[in-house]
Amino acid sequence: MATTTHLHLPNPIPPRLHASPPARLRASASLAHPRLLSGLRLAAARPRPRHGRRAMSVTVRSSLIDPDGGALVDLVAAPERRAALRGEAEALPRVRLAAVDVEWAHVLAEGWASPLRGFMREHEYLQSLHFNCIRLPDGAGVVNMSLPIVLAIGDREKEEIGASPDVALQGPDGAVLAILRRVEIYPHNKEERIARTWGTTAPGLPYVDEAIAQAGNWLIGGDLEVIEPIKYNDGLDHYRLSPQQLRNEFDKRGADAVFAFQLRNPVHNGHALLMNDTRRRLLEMGFKNPILLLHPLGGFTKADDVPLPVRMEQHSKVLEDGVLDPETTIVSIFPSPMHYAGPTEVQWHAKARINAGANFYIVGRDPAGMGHPTEKRDLYNPDHGKKVLSMAPGLEKLNILPFKVAAYDTVAKKMAFFDPSRSKNFLFISGTKMRAFAKSGENPPDGFMCPGGWKVLVDYYNSLQTEEAAVATIEQ
Amino acid sequence: MATTTHLHLPNPIPPRLHASPPARLRASASLAHPRLLSGLRLAAARPRPRHGRRAMSVTVRSSLIDPDGGALVDLVAAPERRAALRGEAEALPRVRLAAVDVEWAHVLAEGWASPLRGFMREHEYLQSLHFNCIRLPDGAGVVNMSLPIVLAIGDREKEEIGASPDVALQGPDGAVLAILRRVEIYPHNKEERIARTWGTTAPGLPYVDEAIAQAGNWLIGGDLEVIEPIKYNDGLDHYRLSPQQLRNEFDKRGADAVFAFQLRNPVHNGHALLMNDTRRRLLEMGFKNPILLLHPLGGFTKADDVPLPVRMEQHSKVLEDGVLDPETTIVSIFPSPMHYAGPTEVQWHAKARINAGANFYIVGRDPAGMGHPTEKRDLYNPDHGKKVLSMAPGLEKLNILPFKVAAYDTVAKKMAFFDPSRSKNFLFISGTKMRAFAKSGENPPDGFMCPGGWKVLVDYYNSLQTEEAAVATIEQ
Repeated sequence: MATTTHLHLPNPIPPRLHASPPARLRASASLAHPRLLSGLRLAAARPRPRHGRRAMSVTVRSSLIDPDGGALVDLVAAPERRAALRGEAEALPRVRLAAVDVEWAHVLAEGWASPLRGFMREHEYLQSLHFNCIRLPDGAGVVNMSLPIVLAIGDREKEEIGASPDVALQGPDGAVLAILRRVEIYPHNKEERIARTWGTTAPGLPYVDEAIAQAGNWLIGGDLEVIEPIKYNDGLDHYRLSPQQLRNEFDKRGADAVFAFQLRNPVHNGHALLMNDTRRRLLEMGFKNPILLLHPLGGFTKADDVPLPVRMEQHSKVLEDGVLDPETTIVSIFPSPMHYAGPTEVQWHAKARINAGANFYIVGRDPAGMGHPTEKRDLYNPDHGKKVLSMAPGLEKLNILPFKVAAYDTVAKKMAFFDPSRSKNFLFISGTKMRAFAKSGENPPDGFMCPGGWKVLVDYYNSLQTEEAAVATIEQ
Repeated sequence: MATTTHLHLPNPIPPRLHASPPARLRASASLAHPRLLSGLRLAAARPRPRHGRRAMSVTVRSSLIDPDGGALVDLVAAPERRAALRGEAEALPRVRLAAVDVEWAHVLAEGWASPLRGFMREHEYLQSLHFNCIRLPDGAGVVNMSLPIVLAIGDREKEEIGASPDVALQGPDGAVLAILRRVEIYPHNKEERIARTWGTTAPGLPYVDEAIAQAGNWLIGGDLEVIEPIKYNDGLDHYRLSPQQLRNEFDKRGADAVFAFQLRNPVHNGHALLMNDTRRRLLEMGFKNPILLLHPLGGFTKADDVPLPVRMEQHSKVLEDGVLDPETTIVSIFPSPMHYAGPTEVQWHAKARINAGANFYIVGRDPAGMGHPTEKRDLYNPDHGKKVLSMAPGLEKLNILPFKVAAYDTVAKKMAFFDPSRSKNFLFISGTKMRAFAKSGENPPDGFMCPGGWKVLVDYYNSLQTEEAAVATIEQ
């Protein structure tokens, strides 16, 4: 696993995505060299000083929204502590993480779930499950926390841990990744967790099948200390900017508004229209430099979603083809796994982006939704996501921007906002329809997606069919 | 249905329960005649003045906790409006209420759910379902609201209502009880409602079977105007004090602390020990006159619970036998139906008592819990109720008093707080065990329950067996 510190921006930076020089450096930001600026802001968020230089006391003003709880959590050990932590871990009881658990450790370590400092203890779990928010100390209000971020263990592990206050966490390959301190073990009532999180207990929920059904009957919470930044070595780590790195980047670009777009699908021109229109509206509202955070989800997704590497290539083409403006767009990967928990999950998607500095959040129809696993209907009312989001405790400081509906305008031959007065001119192309086009090699209508992006999808589905054919041949 | 106004206290008042003269009238309360005091306080909570007398402007100071939202809701029409409302209802589309719906209309009408002014519209329903609390206007915080208080209708009723803004609500016997105004109709996703409220969708949940399974696929919300106070004519209406009447009674008695005990079971000496001990603790804390609200739930309960009339008779004996002090105890019926929704429901039980003036709430093991309907275990973790209650948004102003565990001390031959250092001297008598004793005619250990109260239970179970025998004879 590669060792990198947070003190330099990831390198190599893909040329068209976010490497463009800051168009407008704000007066306060231009006090310092951009690289140093990154270090300064990181230091400000960490209690332990990393440098003795006087320059560290320079205050960098930022117009970005405050992270939840006031300070961004960073649970990655300082480089000089790592050897000692590895030594300490040798003597500790161990818990083996599944791939999804590692994704959550990553999420926690970088502060996406600030102010959470580790896998949830029971008092956090119960608040998350019942109230979708967690109370801050000293009457300082609540922060949103709609998904339980928990770690399950089995009876055997519980017994091995015994009364040990600390536990070492190993990755799926056995390497020690982190130490969980002052642990608390409490029952994992899966039925209740599933019912309260998804609003159903029907079989076939992808995250439940992946991460809950076979998991242990206990949950273990505690304070997490991750030994080094978590990397996946899949050629995409340079896209995985932490909330602090994103904040640095927004500051470097002099953003006075950041609008986040969460997605787990390819970007078509309807999405692009919406994002460009949002920027236009923000400019009209008086913002001088709104920056788009195009933020594909990078953790666990269900089997029939388009895989992350294909999506990243597709997004890259969308910027190359000029559909989105690289000057005002940052593409980065959100490391969270996907729950497909609709109105409950969309709050998590929004809350995490506050921690990355976004103060505007675009929400569409049926966010984080899917079909009901056993009935012929959407699992969630498609309007509930944006309604619940707009009412959610702890998200008051985030501006929610509801989607306008975009569809293919058969007269203008491009994606346009749906005009109900001439509804017969509009064609709705669902994700299923889009995949059907790509699979069959048939082209969607002109202007549905930029040609470069479309080719990425066609190539992906072709490769799938080739694979399937190969499997079928072997099976015969 | 009898017509009574809220302006006099219910009569007859059962002699031993709350008719004792106020032991200590507070200086502020003694300014007015107690009867007038009731009227005054009611008027203060209603925007529409009922009387032209100058006396109405007298401010009655009370040390009682404020109701949620600041003012107690009262949705019962003034007597002079009732004829007009009945006339208006003639022309409106109608919805027939089930017995449980009437209980909820009663709960709403008297302000137990303050600041809710009617069956929930969708924005209230969604907040209740997802957050267990509802946001007040103008950033004034949240109030707790953990159970959806909703009214279901079917396709046919929805069609009949059409675009009518107002709807008449009829009781099960066809009599018009109320008008629901500015209605909003939205989908009733039963699966999601059940999963998020109970944390399970297992078949056999009593409230689901009674009130949801057969209910319509739409919910209708709106502002409720109840034509006259809801009465049951079961000989127990005099026990059904509204929150306002309870507040008046607490003020009359000069209460400086009110501690509420929710129950749906007979009172044994362990309960009494706990309530008396709570009063002792409150006196130690410096309160001069803590009053106990012994508050049995009076709405829907499951078939094997002891029925309300039997429980009321049993409670009455407990006061007659001097186990609880009538001077410092008010026995009244809480008109809500029971959900058996554990940690979600206990919040409702506590919140409603704030509205009745209670600032201390006693919570025990597994409040509002029951066995899992299909698995051999408790449906809820028995500790979750008090934990969730202590963390619940909107209940910050309520003092939660967790139960100490009481059990039968076989040495002292009485109910006592469990002492783990001599655990073998204690006998735990569960509800099931207690019912088995009563059914078999066997006496529980001396000191478990006062003899008068025990006899009520034995007589009840005897009558059941006589009934069962009669049915068996007919079936043969």
